[in-house]
Amino acid sequence: MTEPALLDRLIDALRCLPGVGPKSAQRIAFHLLERDPEGGRRLARVLAEALDRISRCRRCRTLCENEICDLCANPQRDPSLLCVVEQPSGILAIEQATDFRGLYFVLGGRLSPIDGIGPEQLGLDQLRARLNAGELVELILAISPTVEGAATAQYIAALADDAKVNVTRIAHGVPLGGDLEMVDGGTLAHAFAGRRAL
Amino acid sequence: MTEPALLDRLIDALRCLPGVGPKSAQRIAFHLLERDPEGGRRLARVLAEALDRISRCRRCRTLCENEICDLCANPQRDPSLLCVVEQPSGILAIEQATDFRGLYFVLGGRLSPIDGIGPEQLGLDQLRARLNAGELVELILAISPTVEGAATAQYIAALADDAKVNVTRIAHGVPLGGDLEMVDGGTLAHAFAGRRAL
Ligand SMILES: [Zn+2]
Ligand SMILES: [Zn+2]
Repeated sequence: MTEPALLDRLIDALRCLPGVGPKSAQRIAFHLLERDPEGGRRLARVLAEALDRISRCRRCRTLCENEICDLCANPQRDPSLLCVVEQPSGILAIEQATDFRGLYFVLGGRLSPIDGIGPEQLGLDQLRARLNAGELVELILAISPTVEGAATAQYIAALADDAKVNVTRIAHGVPLGGDLEMVDGGTLAHAFAGRRAL
Repeated sequence: MTEPALLDRLIDALRCLPGVGPKSAQRIAFHLLERDPEGGRRLARVLAEALDRISRCRRCRTLCENEICDLCANPQRDPSLLCVVEQPSGILAIEQATDFRGLYFVLGGRLSPIDGIGPEQLGLDQLRARLNAGELVELILAISPTVEGAATAQYIAALADDAKVNVTRIAHGVPLGGDLEMVDGGTLAHAFAGRRAL
């Protein structure tokens, strides 16, 4: 035994972080134990609390502490514009980069039958009900231009057509195959302004 | 308010991880909340426990759960050989790559007066006492060949000379300016075997 069991367990637990293999997990463990125990304690506490208390907004499916998120509950936002994003991070990216004043809908992924992700997993029944409620004037698709993203956009565009709601998608300034949150604000603002009818 | 306060706090707390800026912190937060809440809960629990229970071995200063670590407490190890490393990760790297059967001493850094890291911070009084106790035949320096590492090695070599203990350092197969734990096992084994008198 050259290593205490608890340290092993910490290194192993750190591998839940995206992109962290055995070597980086070890480096992170030593960093927290030796150089930043205060930061580590705070992380442990806030992470446990966040996992306990954060869930999905009932209306837009983003992550939030309440039943309805601040954005959906904000009467200043224009309810006739709805922007569909894949992840909650897409909302943050668009809010930071553009002057969009409408509401959002979070899919939580892209259609991928092979991974068992169908319309139900993405909340598309809920989106359909919203499209049919008669309040929407424009549905904006801010979905990454990947193969699965394009199929997802196609599917949603058909729902909007059925409901006679205009559909646009943000312009191709988002790099092909790229994730929305990796795009710089300028590019994203440009792509957002240049959205076109689908 | 476009973002719940608790999510903000989680993103902020994640920045204690080395090399994690605001964008990656956000990505990690969403990953844990949406894709791996179980892994996140386990990390929060193990991290809190590790920070509570892991401290320094009284003898070698590595991180461990007990007063004395398993290596120092192991009667099979040869107490006449002492290998000085900068960090506990150096012990793991050497144990995995070589057949070294002696003991270790962990500095916890390199001499760097400008950062307030002097002999006291590195436990060098304790190392001196060990050199003067008469049990050591060889002191092996496995310190990264950086400018500060070289100054630290120099300082320790002088302590060993005073105590009439032979000093060697691992061969320059460790890349200049490189961190010990980033080196592959083969290179490290070679450098360890090729250690020479200082
Ligand atoms: Zn909402
Ligand atoms: Zn020890």
